[in-house]
Amino acid sequence: MFEKGGENVARNKHPEETVNLILNVASRLFMEKGYEHTSIQDIIDHLGGLSKGAIYHHFKSKEEILYAVTDKMTAQSDQMLRAICDRKDLNGKEKLETIFRESLNRSVQDDIFTVAPGFYNNPHLLFSLLHETVETAAPDFIQPVIEQGVEDGSIVTKHPKQLAEMISLLANLWMNPMVFDDSEEDTYHKFMIFDQVLKGLGLDIADEKMMARMQELTTIYQKSK
Amino acid sequence: MFEKGGENVARNKHPEETVNLILNVASRLFMEKGYEHTSIQDIIDHLGGLSKGAIYHHFKSKEEILYAVTDKMTAQSDQMLRAICDRKDLNGKEKLETIFRESLNRSVQDDIFTVAPGFYNNPHLLFSLLHETVETAAPDFIQPVIEQGVEDGSIVTKHPKQLAEMISLLANLWMNPMVFDDSEEDTYHKFMIFDQVLKGLGLDIADEKMMARMQELTTIYQKSK
Repeated sequence: MFEKGGENVARNKHPEETVNLILNVASRLFMEKGYEHTSIQDIIDHLGGLSKGAIYHHFKSKEEILYAVTDKMTAQSDQMLRAICDRKDLNGKEKLETIFRESLNRSVQDDIFTVAPGFYNNPHLLFSLLHETVETAAPDFIQPVIEQGVEDGSIVTKHPKQLAEMISLLANLWMNPMVFDDSEEDTYHKFMIFDQVLKGLGLDIADEKMMARMQELTTIYQKSK
Repeated sequence: MFEKGGENVARNKHPEETVNLILNVASRLFMEKGYEHTSIQDIIDHLGGLSKGAIYHHFKSKEEILYAVTDKMTAQSDQMLRAICDRKDLNGKEKLETIFRESLNRSVQDDIFTVAPGFYNNPHLLFSLLHETVETAAPDFIQPVIEQGVEDGSIVTKHPKQLAEMISLLANLWMNPMVFDDSEEDTYHKFMIFDQVLKGLGLDIADEKMMARMQELTTIYQKSK
């Protein structure tokens, strides 16, 4: 299955074109059939003669293709999130609220929830989401905004790193319907508890609209899986 | 490695003795060398002539042996936790507090933190802990106690199932030093945020002693890994 000797051989002069071709085909198939129902063979069948070895030269597994597809999906809107962190007209708490709202609202979320990978049956996907949350999302986006909030007095905590981690884990993992295969009702109850936790920490940042959007994404996921 | 034909063959008339022998040997080795530094071969070497096939007849992997070892370690004290749920002299909130305290204090925790499996590098271990937390710990232990608290007025929530899940995930996963390879300082900050979350939910159940015990377990883990 794995063409061992190929690892160090340049297959063509434009490897980035091969990668883009693979990602475009995979992305379309994931959207049409869902991640679970797309096999590596399906992707190969749509690559117009590209060999299995050529795919494995760039991606070790279907999971790695998924990571690259979702990275590509989110890369543009991640810049938008970074721009929120840099705004001068909002205090820390307002930025936190804006990050949550914009994260939910960005249209790329519809695509991700349509691809709908089943985390709950896949230890590696879950593991990757956990690492991404604790090593990137929390320290790069949430913690700096909380630290700003502590400085400007809009957020009160002595433990900004751990507060960022806890909030990010609840938002990205626990409230993510793809992780626990949640129904719209589950999402409602989880959102209410999340809101209660945030309010208890002095963070009145969740609202009805976010809640409605969460349920909308849950519906997209439930229909697509 | 796997003796395929052996699966349906009774290797001896007392398979439970074989299982017990494997678990006792594995348990001792995990305690002495740590889980990560013990190989299946180490276990076989100490089984006095029992073949690899005989082990794989009962356990598919080292991870499965770990689950059986920790199940055995906790089985007795789980009964103690169940007994707390049945007590008539405590209200729901007091039971929740007692469950936390007794869960931390039971001596089997020292053994588990000495075995010290590295969850953070092992997707399957993490996955298993997540499932166990959401499918057993939360619905079987925490949710009934919260529901009792709602009835007797000591806990206020409209979402007992999700509150139980959220608290259990934070306690079992996020605050577990084995999952995130936490230092004693990390444990301190996480505990403080956890306490803040609980207090915000009207649950003033965490105290200094629990905190000291959490740090003690973190020290045992850090020394053993």
